[in-house]
Amino acid sequence: MPDLHYVDELRSIVGADNITTEKQELLCYSYDATQMEFLPIAVVHPANAEEVAAVLKLANREKFPVFPRGAGSGFSGGALPKAGGIVLVTTRLNRILCIDTENLIAEVEPGVVTEQFQQEVEKLGLFYPPDPASLKFSTLGGNVAENAGGPRAVKYGCTKDFVMGLEVVLPGGEIIRTGGETYKGVVGYDLTKLLCGSEGTLGVITKIIFKLLPYPDAKKTMLTIFDSIDGAAKSVSAIIKSKIIPTTLEFMDYATLQCVERRFNLGIPPEGRAVLLIEVDGDRDLIEKQAQQIHDIIKPLGLVQFRAAKDNAESEQLWKVRRLVSPSLRDVNPDKYNEDIVVPRSKVPDVIRRIETIQQRFDIPIVNFGHAGDGNIHVNVMIDKALPGMEEKAHEAIREVFRAALDLGGTMSGEHGVGLSKAPYIELELTPSQIAAMKAIKQALDPNNILNPGKIFPW
Amino acid sequence: MPDLHYVDELRSIVGADNITTEKQELLCYSYDATQMEFLPIAVVHPANAEEVAAVLKLANREKFPVFPRGAGSGFSGGALPKAGGIVLVTTRLNRILCIDTENLIAEVEPGVVTEQFQQEVEKLGLFYPPDPASLKFSTLGGNVAENAGGPRAVKYGCTKDFVMGLEVVLPGGEIIRTGGETYKGVVGYDLTKLLCGSEGTLGVITKIIFKLLPYPDAKKTMLTIFDSIDGAAKSVSAIIKSKIIPTTLEFMDYATLQCVERRFNLGIPPEGRAVLLIEVDGDRDLIEKQAQQIHDIIKPLGLVQFRAAKDNAESEQLWKVRRLVSPSLRDVNPDKYNEDIVVPRSKVPDVIRRIETIQQRFDIPIVNFGHAGDGNIHVNVMIDKALPGMEEKAHEAIREVFRAALDLGGTMSGEHGVGLSKAPYIELELTPSQIAAMKAIKQALDPNNILNPGKIFPW
Repeated sequence: MPDLHYVDELRSIVGADNITTEKQELLCYSYDATQMEFLPIAVVHPANAEEVAAVLKLANREKFPVFPRGAGSGFSGGALPKAGGIVLVTTRLNRILCIDTENLIAEVEPGVVTEQFQQEVEKLGLFYPPDPASLKFSTLGGNVAENAGGPRAVKYGCTKDFVMGLEVVLPGGEIIRTGGETYKGVVGYDLTKLLCGSEGTLGVITKIIFKLLPYPDAKKTMLTIFDSIDGAAKSVSAIIKSKIIPTTLEFMDYATLQCVERRFNLGIPPEGRAVLLIEVDGDRDLIEKQAQQIHDIIKPLGLVQFRAAKDNAESEQLWKVRRLVSPSLRDVNPDKYNEDIVVPRSKVPDVIRRIETIQQRFDIPIVNFGHAGDGNIHVNVMIDKALPGMEEKAHEAIREVFRAALDLGGTMSGEHGVGLSKAPYIELELTPSQIAAMKAIKQALDPNNILNPGKIFPW
Repeated sequence: MPDLHYVDELRSIVGADNITTEKQELLCYSYDATQMEFLPIAVVHPANAEEVAAVLKLANREKFPVFPRGAGSGFSGGALPKAGGIVLVTTRLNRILCIDTENLIAEVEPGVVTEQFQQEVEKLGLFYPPDPASLKFSTLGGNVAENAGGPRAVKYGCTKDFVMGLEVVLPGGEIIRTGGETYKGVVGYDLTKLLCGSEGTLGVITKIIFKLLPYPDAKKTMLTIFDSIDGAAKSVSAIIKSKIIPTTLEFMDYATLQCVERRFNLGIPPEGRAVLLIEVDGDRDLIEKQAQQIHDIIKPLGLVQFRAAKDNAESEQLWKVRRLVSPSLRDVNPDKYNEDIVVPRSKVPDVIRRIETIQQRFDIPIVNFGHAGDGNIHVNVMIDKALPGMEEKAHEAIREVFRAALDLGGTMSGEHGVGLSKAPYIELELTPSQIAAMKAIKQALDPNNILNPGKIFPW
């Protein structure tokens, strides 16, 4: 246990039960979904914004870094205490404060688990669409900090699009509100959207006001298999051009299909080269009509198989193909880097082809699936870390994947954020002037660089 | 003509034809829709981002203020050169650079007129929904800088919701890109959304990437008249709860109705106390069904009249009631302050009642109409500036209106921005800590306070 003079002060802020300095317990807060590990000096579990503020004020006085953390389910190391210091966990701030069925808004604390929130609003006939893959354990605060996406983003947008306001503790310890309970508001700068996706570097979120929607009447799921990736990609554009914006347009490439089929034997036809899992939602009559339209639109584009679910049970069955992707990937290699590049929708086939070249050149299996509707592809670089040199080679390959996405007018990350994992690559995407503007904002709000240092920018 | 030593340098940057120092011409850039007037020292019309950058660099060297201006159609004085200095007009940057029908995005320069852009994308079957009232002459750059709204915001959102990326000249003269061509992107801070609605204080926008939608299949307009404001407000919530999000839910109060009826004799029934102009768009069959559902939902809520348009010509006829509001207001009094408060949807009747009390107390006619779907009410304080003391009284009344909106969880402005007109009131809405955080960002990006000084914050 470290003998730091400020630990006692931290203890008096959060209470003896809500601070940990035991190595065994610290270990639980040393990792996330990236497999990187950094041990913090202490972990605090504040109960409210005032305690968060007191911790940050102390941090400024004593100049120790503070790393905010929700469930630690992030894919970019955003919550990891790289420079030592204190991990500040928000999971005690876990109340749903209000669900307003008149104005379709909700106020929550950041530690509420995403799925739990969805279930609560659904009980009232309402809908919170953002659905990151980790929704069973990720927290809403983490979702906001990373601007989490998910399959439904193509129709509904990402987490940020549902955030109307925040209560946030700024790095200096001031508690402020941003935005509010109204759909519109243009008084002053939009600090709300600035904080969304700022990866815990500009403030600790202590309350969130979300916009909600009425829960859709019905949904219709279709599993569609194509004889080429181009057919699948052209289908995406053609569907949207026909004025149908599906809820999800999930894509799987041939490598992904092979993984799933090898392991689970789902009966995917051998000529299948790409899958689109399509879901539409809304008015019950309309979605039946849309399903028929979708079939007619994609039929000439190399369609090999079209299965439309008749009910929820069949829908679940079709989703199985997508859900079995992750468990089946480990058959390829035990370790993976899960990247999440984005390209303009029409460039999906180009980027997949470039990735094929990269995988051949580096001789590393790369499996691609993701959200074709918004061009967001999860590029899974499958390696065995036990093999010497493979990790380095993987990093080289990832750099090439990023370059391919950027060449095609895309970005390195659509959902996961930069955190630690992508910080070394950030200069591929952002110019020195862009980085300087962002750092100027960070410096203005966090002059002592207390809050989540080392993330996003290569300091 | 002022004999400032830097005018020659400005001339060499933009060319002799693109700088004005003649008083007669300067006058054209001295006002906007607020009726305030401030004469600039010079007006420059740069042709591209590089010229904008050169002007801003010179401004930093010589410490003169620069006021960016689109069409000058703003309602809050955002483009006015209060502190003298240079007006920088973006109207020469008026090209639509690309409309990408595959990815449903467009790239434009800021000087493109909103309606012209809408027409161009509609020719290709696409849709740019934001529709500020000034769209026939306002520029897209101004729309972005102010985050302009409009009637369709309830379904589609405001300008900001369609901005995917920007090219912007920062106050120091650096040209940067923000965001990009992809729907998703989480690399670095969201400078795009920070710049949207920053009222020209953080950068000069030189290119905009917009997200587009497929043009809706059809629309259906309904004029509905209620015997009370509560009936109209309850209808708004009831419609949305029934899973129908109309494109527009325009509201007019009794005072507005009286103005329109007195002047234009449209045959509004005498028991009518409030109007909702409702429009739905989308699939042709679905909207017919929705129109019927809407009728059934609102019938028990004090519905006095329900007229549904059968075609576009009839739709135009129904919209006439809304369009005749502005021309008929001047009958009440020659001058007006057009405010645009927002309250949570369910609080619209409360805020209207409070405004009635305010109008009685101050003995000034106040006419309310606007976008009931998002609780955004245009509060028109009608005065005669020629009458001594009336202007001061109006400002007092406006302060009370703002207080009422804020008391009910709302904001002072949903669409117009703060600019000069609301800057004196900003401390009613924002706390010192909020203002400090915003000013810290301004200071970080514009240390010499060159760009649009005096706007938003009371310096």
